[in-house]
Amino acid sequence: MPHSHPHATAAVPDNGTPDGVNATLHTPISADGLPVLGRTYTVAARQGRAVRLRTGQVLRIITTHGSQVCDTWAFNTENMAEYLSMEHARAAIDRTMPRVGDALLSNRRRPILTLLADTSPGVHDTLIAACDLPRYHGLGVQGYHDNCSDNLRLALQAVGLRTAEVPCPLNLWMNIPVHADSHIEWLAPVSAPGDYVDLRAELDCVVVMSACPQDIIAVNAHHPVELHFCVLA
Amino acid sequence: MPHSHPHATAAVPDNGTPDGVNATLHTPISADGLPVLGRTYTVAARQGRAVRLRTGQVLRIITTHGSQVCDTWAFNTENMAEYLSMEHARAAIDRTMPRVGDALLSNRRRPILTLLADTSPGVHDTLIAACDLPRYHGLGVQGYHDNCSDNLRLALQAVGLRTAEVPCPLNLWMNIPVHADSHIEWLAPVSAPGDYVDLRAELDCVVVMSACPQDIIAVNAHHPVELHFCVLA
Repeated sequence: MPHSHPHATAAVPDNGTPDGVNATLHTPISADGLPVLGRTYTVAARQGRAVRLRTGQVLRIITTHGSQVCDTWAFNTENMAEYLSMEHARAAIDRTMPRVGDALLSNRRRPILTLLADTSPGVHDTLIAACDLPRYHGLGVQGYHDNCSDNLRLALQAVGLRTAEVPCPLNLWMNIPVHADSHIEWLAPVSAPGDYVDLRAELDCVVVMSACPQDIIAVNAHHPVELHFCVLA
Repeated sequence: MPHSHPHATAAVPDNGTPDGVNATLHTPISADGLPVLGRTYTVAARQGRAVRLRTGQVLRIITTHGSQVCDTWAFNTENMAEYLSMEHARAAIDRTMPRVGDALLSNRRRPILTLLADTSPGVHDTLIAACDLPRYHGLGVQGYHDNCSDNLRLALQAVGLRTAEVPCPLNLWMNIPVHADSHIEWLAPVSAPGDYVDLRAELDCVVVMSACPQDIIAVNAHHPVELHFCVLA
C-alpha cells in the first residue's frame, strides 16, 4: 500500500451522513435486510428500502403506478467500497441505458447485477445524480425535503450498513433523453402500471431502492408514489 | 453521526491503491503540487500530473497534438471526499458536455471548476470511467498497462495526497457520441493541435490530469502522446 500523508486522509466529513431523517430509518424489511423469498415488499412513497441478496438471487422491482422512478444502488456486502457504477456499466455495454441481458459492472469492473427482464419500454437513466437536500434548496425549497441520497443513507443504516459515498444511481424508469447536441430533458416516465425489471445478483450484495420524492420537476409526473419489490423464490 | 456497524466499515480495500507504478510517482511538478504561475508543464505520454489551485486561479490544459484525451479530476484539498462529479455537473448544466461559462459541480453540489474558455469544438466526454488495469485485461492485455486510474492515484501520491475513490473523470476531448437509441461510439478526438480549455478553480483544489494511455481503441487515435498545462499568471 503506498504511503499517504495523514493530513490528506484525516477524519474530514465523508458523504455518508444524512442531512435529515424520515421513516426510512425505522422501517427496514428486517433487522438485517434479509428478505422472505417470494414476499412482496413496499418502498413507501418518498422513502427507501434496502434488501440483501445472495449471489444468483433475482430481485423484481415494480413501478406499481407506472409513473414512479426508482433510484437503485447495489453494494458488495463484503466491501461497501465496491458498488454498481454507472460509468463502468456504460463503458461495458456501449449504451447509456441497459437492455435485457446486460451485466452491470461495479467500480472494480466486475458484474454486480444483471438485467434479466424488463417489461417496460426500457427507458432508464444512468446520467443523473441522486437528488439531495442541496438540490431541493437550489429548486427553492425551504427546510428539509425527502431526497434519494438520504433515503440511501437511511435505508442502509436501518439494516446496519453504511456507505461513505452516494454513487450515481441506476434511475429505473427515469426519462432523460439526450439530444444530438448533448442537451438533456427531464420528462415523466413512459412505463406502464405494473412494469417491472428483474435484476440478478452477481455478488452477495445489498440493493437499495428509493421511491424518488422529486415533486418539483416532472420526473415522477409531479406525484411521488410507492414502489414494490420481491426477491423471487 | 448515525451509528454504523463495524463489520460494514472495517478496513476493507478502498479504491485508492494503485495496481502498479509508472514514472508518475516520481515526477510531480513540485513536492506539494504547487505550480509556478505562468510556467508550462508537461503531462508525459501515458502519465499523470497533479496541480494545486487556489480559488480563482485559472488552469489551461492544452492538447498539444490535438489527438490526445485528458482524463481530468478535481478534489477539494480541504476534504478529498469532495470532488468534481460528472453526474452532479450534468444535472446542473442540462447537458452531457460542458460549454464555456458552465460551472461544474462537486458531489456536494457546489461549483468546484468553471469552464472559462474552450478553443476546441467542445466535444468532451462525461460518461466513461477512467481506464484501469481490469479494463486492459478485458481488452486482452497481459501484465501491467499504464492506466488513468493509477495515474490519478500516483499523481496524488506524488504530491502527498490520496483519494479513496476514482471518480468519473471529465474526459477532455474524448469523443463518445450518444445516439438516439442510447448506443455510444468510441471515436478519435476532433480537436486540433494546440486546442485548450481554461478551468477556473471555485474552491482550493487539486486538479489531476492523465494523458490517457489507451492505445487499443481509437480514443487517442491509437497513439498516446503528451499534454501541456499552465496555471495562468
